[in-house]
Amino acid sequence: MADLRRDPIVGRWVIVDTDHPNKPEDYEYEQHLSKAGVCPFCYGNEPMTPLEIDAFRDPSTAPNTPGWQVRVVPNKFPALQIEGDLDRRGIGIYDMSNGIGAHEVLIETPYHNKDIPDLLNEEIEKVIMMCCRRAQDLIKDKRFKYIMIFKNHGYAAGASLQHAHTQIIALPMVPKNVMEEIRGAFNYFQYRERCIFCDMIRQELQEGERMVFENKYFVSFCPFVSRFPFEVWIIPKKHNGLFCHLPQEEIPALASILKETIHRLKKVFPNLSYNFIIHTSPANSDTDGFEGYHWHIEIMPKLTRVAGFEWGTGFYAVTTPPELAARYLKGIN
Amino acid sequence: MADLRRDPIVGRWVIVDTDHPNKPEDYEYEQHLSKAGVCPFCYGNEPMTPLEIDAFRDPSTAPNTPGWQVRVVPNKFPALQIEGDLDRRGIGIYDMSNGIGAHEVLIETPYHNKDIPDLLNEEIEKVIMMCCRRAQDLIKDKRFKYIMIFKNHGYAAGASLQHAHTQIIALPMVPKNVMEEIRGAFNYFQYRERCIFCDMIRQELQEGERMVFENKYFVSFCPFVSRFPFEVWIIPKKHNGLFCHLPQEEIPALASILKETIHRLKKVFPNLSYNFIIHTSPANSDTDGFEGYHWHIEIMPKLTRVAGFEWGTGFYAVTTPPELAARYLKGIN
Repeated sequence: MADLRRDPIVGRWVIVDTDHPNKPEDYEYEQHLSKAGVCPFCYGNEPMTPLEIDAFRDPSTAPNTPGWQVRVVPNKFPALQIEGDLDRRGIGIYDMSNGIGAHEVLIETPYHNKDIPDLLNEEIEKVIMMCCRRAQDLIKDKRFKYIMIFKNHGYAAGASLQHAHTQIIALPMVPKNVMEEIRGAFNYFQYRERCIFCDMIRQELQEGERMVFENKYFVSFCPFVSRFPFEVWIIPKKHNGLFCHLPQEEIPALASILKETIHRLKKVFPNLSYNFIIHTSPANSDTDGFEGYHWHIEIMPKLTRVAGFEWGTGFYAVTTPPELAARYLKGIN
Repeated sequence: MADLRRDPIVGRWVIVDTDHPNKPEDYEYEQHLSKAGVCPFCYGNEPMTPLEIDAFRDPSTAPNTPGWQVRVVPNKFPALQIEGDLDRRGIGIYDMSNGIGAHEVLIETPYHNKDIPDLLNEEIEKVIMMCCRRAQDLIKDKRFKYIMIFKNHGYAAGASLQHAHTQIIALPMVPKNVMEEIRGAFNYFQYRERCIFCDMIRQELQEGERMVFENKYFVSFCPFVSRFPFEVWIIPKKHNGLFCHLPQEEIPALASILKETIHRLKKVFPNLSYNFIIHTSPANSDTDGFEGYHWHIEIMPKLTRVAGFEWGTGFYAVTTPPELAARYLKGIN
């Protein structure tokens, strides 16, 4: 019989198929599409993007020219716009606001065909440093309540360009799913006076069967209540609510575990499309109620098509138990 | 500038691109895949499915033989199993339960290539009647707290078989998203002593710009806070919390609006993949707290790939405003 498992943070139930679990070869996941045309993110094509916001570049070079390692530009088709005052109003029973926000693109590498596992550790460290720097800069703007950093890699994950990039969105309100996660963690904290993520790390390290990788400052594991097959979380061992407060000394460890984890996923699933999202505390908010939150990265491989069942209920059916997924990622199966 | 719109029921914010909205021709949605092989849902192939649970069939014919118009069978690969007692337990900080439930498939037509718009009204009425009958039967089992009825049509919507079918799942707990919707509607009811869905119908009929179709008992419209482009809801005009309490006299009107709405979607998007989900009140629950809920159908066309942004936050970006989508569905554009 399948397991039903309940997420201890947000209360979501998922069905885990422990009876007839899918092995990696059972997934028909889509391959990457190589798009034709000139890539605006490639080295030398800097004039094709909007003007550079920030970059790590050779100090002898000018913005919007070659000489960079990591480059941040505004999204050419931004979901939200940075100019203006937030204007919230009602229309009958509905509420709305104008679309104030920021939408930036961090180009991770000058090379067109490189994904995170193909980069050097030092290159990934620069990507992480730049994510922190942009988040620190954006939260200075008091209109922004949440900075979301995420990556869509590959066609099936929603990427429109193949060249490796991360997106940074500043939102004028805290998204619903984030708020739920924070409230769930806070309820646990109030009841137990402990952080639920810290407890989760302890239990995962002790049980071991869902662990993927560990280093001095981080762990990666397949969560007990995965929503997607081969989902992996990366969590800092030291309690810290805000990603952009990441201590300098932890950056190499984060680069290393991110590279290793995605490398292992792509070893099992070549050409995998995936999303990852940095879950972090809101910015510019009353910090009461955010005690007990702990930033982390959730990596979601795109192996299945999400169907009506999941959309309708938030009740996911997971075809590979996380315990089995972890074995494949560790190379035991 | 884009709109930010807030769902009045669950509090979700979405970004609606009113500046550069996508037209139907801007979507590259996937085509249906015709699967090779023998279809187990086709007329004459009855022995290929598990034993029939219920059917509308010629009274002179035996179960599991031809002679049927609508047929319900257990899912051959059920997510949940019907035998056993519910056994909930904890593992450290996690909670789990065994996978008790029911998972049935309603085969809508004996013909392999027909979708809802290709069926006669009387045939769709039989599908609806059978959905009600199965829900009424399943809620007699006190272990089941929620009966979910949904349809995955087409490859991109997660269907594994092309032959038109609806799925019925009985769950031993109320899914999180359903509970949120019910709580949101209840909060509104407590505050205003009115049903939020009834208010929504009133406002949509009055404003008119998101309306798609209307008959004596039902309306269909593109919701103000659509999560997906060309999303359409069908709602009964008369307040009713439970789908399976659908009055007999409303069935022809529901068949007609369902056929008309999906017909219009497929006129704009030939070979469209879509999901629909019947949102209804829980079964076998304390009915306090469910006042103010109003059953309805949510139809979600699969025109875009859902990316990291949506998964991470529940903060959807909608590339065609519902007002424009409704114009296309009404044939005005």
